[in-house]
Amino acid sequence: MSTPQKYELLYWPGIPGRGEFPRLAFEATRTPYTDVSNTVPGGIHQVLAVKADDATHDEAGNPPAFAPPALRVHGEGKNGKTLVLSQTPAILAFLGDKLDLAGADAAERAWIQALALTALDLNNETHDTHHPVSTLAYYEDQKTEALRKAADFREARIPKFFGYFERVLKGNKEGKGKYLVGDKLSYADLALWQVVHGLKFAFPKELKAREDAGEFPTIFKTFFPAVPEHGNLKEYLDSDRRKPYSKGVFRHYPELDRQ
Amino acid sequence: MSTPQKYELLYWPGIPGRGEFPRLAFEATRTPYTDVSNTVPGGIHQVLAVKADDATHDEAGNPPAFAPPALRVHGEGKNGKTLVLSQTPAILAFLGDKLDLAGADAAERAWIQALALTALDLNNETHDTHHPVSTLAYYEDQKTEALRKAADFREARIPKFFGYFERVLKGNKEGKGKYLVGDKLSYADLALWQVVHGLKFAFPKELKAREDAGEFPTIFKTFFPAVPEHGNLKEYLDSDRRKPYSKGVFRHYPELDRQ
Repeated sequence: MSTPQKYELLYWPGIPGRGEFPRLAFEATRTPYTDVSNTVPGGIHQVLAVKADDATHDEAGNPPAFAPPALRVHGEGKNGKTLVLSQTPAILAFLGDKLDLAGADAAERAWIQALALTALDLNNETHDTHHPVSTLAYYEDQKTEALRKAADFREARIPKFFGYFERVLKGNKEGKGKYLVGDKLSYADLALWQVVHGLKFAFPKELKAREDAGEFPTIFKTFFPAVPEHGNLKEYLDSDRRKPYSKGVFRHYPELDRQ
Repeated sequence: MSTPQKYELLYWPGIPGRGEFPRLAFEATRTPYTDVSNTVPGGIHQVLAVKADDATHDEAGNPPAFAPPALRVHGEGKNGKTLVLSQTPAILAFLGDKLDLAGADAAERAWIQALALTALDLNNETHDTHHPVSTLAYYEDQKTEALRKAADFREARIPKFFGYFERVLKGNKEGKGKYLVGDKLSYADLALWQVVHGLKFAFPKELKAREDAGEFPTIFKTFFPAVPEHGNLKEYLDSDRRKPYSKGVFRHYPELDRQ
């Protein structure tokens, strides 16, 4: 048995999902971490335990998680115990400070948090295109509503979000189109990159039509290819640690894409 | 003309909405602030300007907001200029640090952030009960979908979220049911309180039936009455600064409530 890494990610196995955001932070900074459910035998039970409907505070005083992902950080909890924190934006804010992905000063830190939250809102809205009524019901049982929701998402929400990020990238002169804030990589860049990557999978015709029409050139031509140049990201994306999209947030249902 | 307060809230006039979360943080700590659109003549134009579809960075380098609320903080931006930050969870995290609503140490700070994000997720899901398809379309044009979404929300989501917060309140022994983390008020308490208050307005039969049945006793009997005891909250809630619910996040459509 090897010693556990300082950082242990608790998330569903086999999909990128919301676990991908902290994974990219680790890989972009070459920070060792344990992806528990994907690499530890029986690790899924640790994920289930931290978000169980009857889970309560652990012996270090950590409250249970509402939903995965959760992050365990050894030595950073109460009295030097293990900290367990949850909620993707909170995990990213915490890791941003630790891994130097949170900007150069307090102002950049606040902007990066806001921009990451906005990218995560787009992630959540993507999920709702195939589950507009109920997260528990099957897609097939809410397909009528999904068709309507997806049309609104493609026609109104994608241009609104992409238009916003295009303006932020262009307006940040220091970043030369590669960074949302300042002149170095932040967790907001990683969050936006992952959502654009996922949307290219889920809505390939919609994204290609917009890219081919010359929309959002900074996002598509400058930002998107630049992010994987950092740290270990290229190797990671080519490895089997990067899980394929399947039945998670980003799903490719051709009927929901541009027709 | 009086000098502007250090903190200026930029949000839609006349509704609580997402602006209510920072308002409660100010009122609970008796912190002076300017509620721009509600108190400054023509203030709405300042809200519109910060989130306009063509807004770009201001002269202090602040990126535009994707949507209200935004917060202006004089003297805390780049080179002592004005900081503008957006996204409710980021505003609360920032104010939490400044106004001592973010816990006693780094662990509590992380938990409070996660718990506030979870309360805000419930806030967002409440909005989606009346706008499950499109945020731009009228409720009346998505009522069929809303009826189905609201049923799932009442039957699956309310008990899941309330069950979670009930466990967290009970498991935090120090808090005696009054606080989610530790033994003092945090912005997570304010966020949860506001959402419970709003749900009592939007789904009165559903909430009353659950309370009368003895469900979630810590939330209903201990936590909910305790929060307004802090700072200026009682006076605030009785004042005309507290706006009534109308066409914002919390709407009372009897057909969406328990029948």
